[in-house]
Amino acid sequence: MTRGRFITLEGGEGAGKTTALAIVREELERRGRRVRTTREPGGTPAAEKIRALLLDPDTGALDPMTELLLMFAARRENVTDAILPALEGGDDVICDRFTEASHAYQGGGRGLGTAPVDALSELVHPGLEPDLVLVLDVPVDVGLARIRARGDAPDRFESDRSEFLERVRAAYLERAANHPDRFVVIDATRSPDEVADAVRAALRRALDRWS
Amino acid sequence: MTRGRFITLEGGEGAGKTTALAIVREELERRGRRVRTTREPGGTPAAEKIRALLLDPDTGALDPMTELLLMFAARRENVTDAILPALEGGDDVICDRFTEASHAYQGGGRGLGTAPVDALSELVHPGLEPDLVLVLDVPVDVGLARIRARGDAPDRFESDRSEFLERVRAAYLERAANHPDRFVVIDATRSPDEVADAVRAALRRALDRWS
Repeated sequence: MTRGRFITLEGGEGAGKTTALAIVREELERRGRRVRTTREPGGTPAAEKIRALLLDPDTGALDPMTELLLMFAARRENVTDAILPALEGGDDVICDRFTEASHAYQGGGRGLGTAPVDALSELVHPGLEPDLVLVLDVPVDVGLARIRARGDAPDRFESDRSEFLERVRAAYLERAANHPDRFVVIDATRSPDEVADAVRAALRRALDRWS
Repeated sequence: MTRGRFITLEGGEGAGKTTALAIVREELERRGRRVRTTREPGGTPAAEKIRALLLDPDTGALDPMTELLLMFAARRENVTDAILPALEGGDDVICDRFTEASHAYQGGGRGLGTAPVDALSELVHPGLEPDLVLVLDVPVDVGLARIRARGDAPDRFESDRSEFLERVRAAYLERAANHPDRFVVIDATRSPDEVADAVRAALRRALDRWS
């Protein structure tokens, strides 16, 4: 059985990950591929419990390393219970955020750097990297304005200051620059149709490369 | 200011850690030392939330690595919010379980071995090791009989099979044999008075060594 492909969607708040995920799913299914979608933190019952603890404003301030460990704890459940079984069964997996989000939010945003994220990646998903990482990129003020416009209550991460989100964005762009083999950065300030076209084009190029 | 001493109590279920902790506290305070006690997983509000998630039978089976990551997430909160500030303020800290429990339960019991526990120790509490580790040791069947006798409901760990607890005990004893500088193993099958005397004697020897 051919192993499925692992595609992750990354980006700051209000960048349009949810829409992009639906487009990727539709394109893959149109080609007759079986698709499983998941999200992080979360994706399994135990991981969703960890997500609830992480995002609950009542949890209060967590040490950045604690936050990173909880992200990887949820990730481990998602990898072992959902992602790996699906890939090994031949399904493609689309994940709304994965380890690149830890590099961006905890490594960049919280200032932990890459070393602890790399060490935990090696413990939690040795040998597993996404085949394609789509980064939906918008300037921080644009993303925050979109969140406010749709009336979502900010969670513990979104309510953080915009300097933090600038560091998150910079970390995504730096990772993308250093791993051009699997990253595609999509300018998500454009119209929804243009962004959708860019997502489809990036996916098409990846599928051509894999075939 | 002289840094306080860090003393941890370890051992299987029903070994008498709670009683030993009270004795250590009393002995230290009798000598005019300021003492802070804590427990793992737990010790701070966020860490207690993680403890609740870990011990709740509804959480279901967790991957062993997930369990280890959650233990270290709770530990990070306890180290940064409680243990280190107390030690640096000159207080002694007595902790009911610490990283040696991860070596015993997840490293030994769950079969993860020492490498991931060492890697996480380095991320979570670099440079911090207990000055004294007291292991209250009883054979598994004795410990389980004591738990049943006091009518406690077993939690997710205690309800595990006794072969698991045999591996936990073996890991404690192996760690103690390999780190004789800081470990003292106390035969906790003896009468409460004899165990209390052994705890006091081990503490006295440690205090003499540190003075």
